[in-house]
Amino acid sequence: MKKKPLILITNDDGITAPGLRSLIKVMNQIGEVVVVAPDSPQSAMGHAITINNTLFCKKEKIDDGPQVEYSTSGTPADCVKLAVNEILDRKPDICVSGINHGSNASINVIYSGTMSAAIEAGIEGIPAVGFSLLDYNWDADFSPCNDHIKNIVENVLVNGLKKGVVLNVNFPKLSNDKIKGVKICRQAKSYWEEEFDKRVSPLGKNYYWLTGNFVNLDEGDDTDHWALENDYISIVPIQFDLTAHDYVNDLKLWNFEK
Amino acid sequence: MKKKPLILITNDDGITAPGLRSLIKVMNQIGEVVVVAPDSPQSAMGHAITINNTLFCKKEKIDDGPQVEYSTSGTPADCVKLAVNEILDRKPDICVSGINHGSNASINVIYSGTMSAAIEAGIEGIPAVGFSLLDYNWDADFSPCNDHIKNIVENVLVNGLKKGVVLNVNFPKLSNDKIKGVKICRQAKSYWEEEFDKRVSPLGKNYYWLTGNFVNLDEGDDTDHWALENDYISIVPIQFDLTAHDYVNDLKLWNFEK
Repeated sequence: MKKKPLILITNDDGITAPGLRSLIKVMNQIGEVVVVAPDSPQSAMGHAITINNTLFCKKEKIDDGPQVEYSTSGTPADCVKLAVNEILDRKPDICVSGINHGSNASINVIYSGTMSAAIEAGIEGIPAVGFSLLDYNWDADFSPCNDHIKNIVENVLVNGLKKGVVLNVNFPKLSNDKIKGVKICRQAKSYWEEEFDKRVSPLGKNYYWLTGNFVNLDEGDDTDHWALENDYISIVPIQFDLTAHDYVNDLKLWNFEK
Repeated sequence: MKKKPLILITNDDGITAPGLRSLIKVMNQIGEVVVVAPDSPQSAMGHAITINNTLFCKKEKIDDGPQVEYSTSGTPADCVKLAVNEILDRKPDICVSGINHGSNASINVIYSGTMSAAIEAGIEGIPAVGFSLLDYNWDADFSPCNDHIKNIVENVLVNGLKKGVVLNVNFPKLSNDKIKGVKICRQAKSYWEEEFDKRVSPLGKNYYWLTGNFVNLDEGDDTDHWALENDYISIVPIQFDLTAHDYVNDLKLWNFEK
């Protein structure tokens, strides 16, 4: 029998999050699991890393599974860096992040700590997948994701992933019999229309809470937004070469002489 | 005479950073300037936004210029959201971010608060440019950047930018007579090889400082890394559609049936 794959798991909702606990259970069926996750929620942390502060890291025993676990005071990207450089004695065969409580589809990928962990792993040359469920509740039902996650991870372990690409997987909030299947998609063009809830502190200081409405500008039926609205699981291949290659030649026509 | 353009300025080094003060002076020559910047350094914050905490915002008077200024307790992306939705009475004609103390070329763009502000503006449909100087010193000499920044911003105001694209501009650490010109580039393939400096606190707890060595894997002479090494200013058009479009069809061949 072949050696079991080494699976690094992280997330941005923190080491006790039910979405992470659910992902650990599925991954324990596939390989040897090491968890390195933030000790507290790090949602909307984007691709933050900790360079102006110290990082703490502590071994944890949270449930009865065979996995080895560590919590850190850092961001999801920090967790991956620490895991790869300090904790693990060999490069993981795959890094999985999540299951995030809430969507990381369309423009949300930009703000996502879950996806930043996957991207960080990708930068380090590790095949990586971020998983998210379109349900923000702490007690969301993650069980319909399980078989799909197992299948997707096994696909990545068999096929590998193109260098420079990681997968962004989002699940609709549906029972398993209502999920129609998997769609490979592009990221929908969308944005958040912010609404700031302005309040006054007991000491008379103004402050704001950021809230907002999601606005989809994309009519395409090949987007992650469309797939999720139509009861499919969306998979978007994500790259961290941010160059707008098709615009390079246009810019060369500009006049940059002083 | 046409109405002066409205210019939103932000950064990630904080509202008192010399790089920001230098950018304000140049922008005052071009338009009506409003500064909304973090009240403290926010380097390496990636595209973090503040959703689990309150945001404070305060009018500031830091020097004698005609610009209007606000500091916020938030991240660079928060600053742009607050500016557009709460502070400004019309959409800015351009958003400029920086001048960052240190490089945001190649893979650094992923971790950059400076660029996340520009990307946030881009998402909101505002032409945006991030500027960075390859000098981490607080007392770096930003003056060689001035004429180039003016020229680049005027180009953007005249030509506009393609929807979904912002510019990532990096300056070599050189006097003006040594700068050879401007190159339009792609993002170099590179990564940071981390080294964690492990220490023990006075109370006996292990902790880490993240340090690292930059590794360039890209031999191309069309990258931002090459341009900067060869005494050019680099401009990379950056997009926030992260889809690896050329990989979508490959993934469709995988077997996702359970």
